[in-house]
Amino acid sequence: MASAEDDLIARYFRPLATHAGALGLIDDAAILAASGEDIVVTTDAIVEGVHFLPDDPPETLARKALRVNLSDLAAKGATPAGFVLTLALRDINEAWLAPFAQALGEDAAAFGCPLLGGDTVSTPGPLMISVTIFGKLPTGTMVRRDGAKPGDIIAVTGTIGDAALGLACLKGKKLLDDASACEALIARYRTPQPRNALAEAVRTHASAAMDISDGLAGDLAKLCAASKVSATVEASAIPLSDQARRILSSGTAGIEMLIAGGDDYEVLCTVPENRWAAFREAAGRVAVAVAGIGRVQKGNTAPVFLDVSGMPIAMKRLSYSHF
Amino acid sequence: MASAEDDLIARYFRPLATHAGALGLIDDAAILAASGEDIVVTTDAIVEGVHFLPDDPPETLARKALRVNLSDLAAKGATPAGFVLTLALRDINEAWLAPFAQALGEDAAAFGCPLLGGDTVSTPGPLMISVTIFGKLPTGTMVRRDGAKPGDIIAVTGTIGDAALGLACLKGKKLLDDASACEALIARYRTPQPRNALAEAVRTHASAAMDISDGLAGDLAKLCAASKVSATVEASAIPLSDQARRILSSGTAGIEMLIAGGDDYEVLCTVPENRWAAFREAAGRVAVAVAGIGRVQKGNTAPVFLDVSGMPIAMKRLSYSHF
Repeated sequence: MASAEDDLIARYFRPLATHAGALGLIDDAAILAASGEDIVVTTDAIVEGVHFLPDDPPETLARKALRVNLSDLAAKGATPAGFVLTLALRDINEAWLAPFAQALGEDAAAFGCPLLGGDTVSTPGPLMISVTIFGKLPTGTMVRRDGAKPGDIIAVTGTIGDAALGLACLKGKKLLDDASACEALIARYRTPQPRNALAEAVRTHASAAMDISDGLAGDLAKLCAASKVSATVEASAIPLSDQARRILSSGTAGIEMLIAGGDDYEVLCTVPENRWAAFREAAGRVAVAVAGIGRVQKGNTAPVFLDVSGMPIAMKRLSYSHF
Repeated sequence: MASAEDDLIARYFRPLATHAGALGLIDDAAILAASGEDIVVTTDAIVEGVHFLPDDPPETLARKALRVNLSDLAAKGATPAGFVLTLALRDINEAWLAPFAQALGEDAAAFGCPLLGGDTVSTPGPLMISVTIFGKLPTGTMVRRDGAKPGDIIAVTGTIGDAALGLACLKGKKLLDDASACEALIARYRTPQPRNALAEAVRTHASAAMDISDGLAGDLAKLCAASKVSATVEASAIPLSDQARRILSSGTAGIEMLIAGGDDYEVLCTVPENRWAAFREAAGRVAVAVAGIGRVQKGNTAPVFLDVSGMPIAMKRLSYSHF
């Protein structure tokens, strides 16, 4: 009597619905109780052939779909509260669904972000995974894009550009003669590391923040535009992985590929100078690497990236666009 | 400098983001403030070639994508609070986007349900529109699927089966020699009429409720399974439109097509007998037609639909499945 969709939900996704408000996924809706906090809502979808490759494994797809959304919550200063999942599938393939749901459940548990509900639809086209995520924070404390002030220090977490290099590796570009280095970059593309541990520090100290999904250069330009400011960035201060440094030295890729590529899912934020020491200390306590890379400037021009000699780096494009 | 996606958002969707928490869509996230109420969350996606036809007009697609979600809120007894939209597009086609956004904005205003945020992604495949919607209601008052008790009256709103007949018309099935009757049925398929006006009456009087999206028979079976009960329905009591009655009389379609077809987006609920008069009166006050069609029964078998002679109607399937 139960439909194929009901079976699929019962078998694979009910175990992930650990939140009381999910009602075990037997209802049409979930309940999110809020006791005076603000609920932060954001949504991001990934599409086969656009945001991931057809042979990416189901485990990493599950993690990526959730983590690109967790990354938004981290940048907004919010604590994860739960998510709903829309899955567009060509068919019901147990060999794909079982590891997908398993990995999704592991991440949901690890990040304290339970499945609240969802919709599974049939599609004749590419696989698509859409997540809408909810976070909580004290009323009025969400860190917005539009609060950067001239003089603020521009900071990023982790290292920049690895995912773009990983994608280039997956597409067959010969960047390094070192298979394990390529594997490390591919892992950064397939499995982002959202910086949710940093959320409280961002909320406490940052004047503006967003996560980097379309490339540092383009996303900083968006933050500056929202804040009605400009910025200068010292390219040499941008934190890079060993692999990225070696690729830059070898000349198989340039800095533009790293800062205008996508999929970093690091936090980009601006911190007032008098908060910088406290921010760094708070980041240290949660073991998230942060680096100051430049300054917010007055003006309304696009951010300028300076090379070691202080000259602006010319870029053909600031960010990745799928259209 | 702005990407094609940014332009698209600014031009078509920013005017719809009338809620302060949407932050004019310039941020990565929206804020949903909750002052002690429960927030009800539900999500439904529609896919080209599966839930709608490639030549369905953009205006009706916009309305359908939002309304299938509004219908869930109505059945849960919740007041609309806002929605996020994920749009997977093959290309940026202004001739399609302009009327889509216009109609979506009209519905958002009419139902008091502003756009809070979203994601626009490129896809090589079919158009897909996914909505996650939020409603509010007093803590603990969401009407669930699992509260039906033996003896409760089973009620539905509006008329049943028109959308399934409309879809058959669109697919070229000759049901009636009357173009305007077909047009009326097609309009029911393309533009559902969610019963949000009834939400308070449902919340006040119903013991269980859900909206009918996959067919009355199958959805009643789901409600019964969740409530651990069975049901009997008098097929003759099921409210039908004039067009549906004429088709049944002419014999070009049978009752199974009406009650096992999909896309009704009417409310199905169960009401304790001692609440029935008050429920009908409350429905009358908001001008939503409700009809009692049967009774909840003890047991765990699938609901039985009885013909005028009191004999069970044999059905090959209870509901529509896309897989």
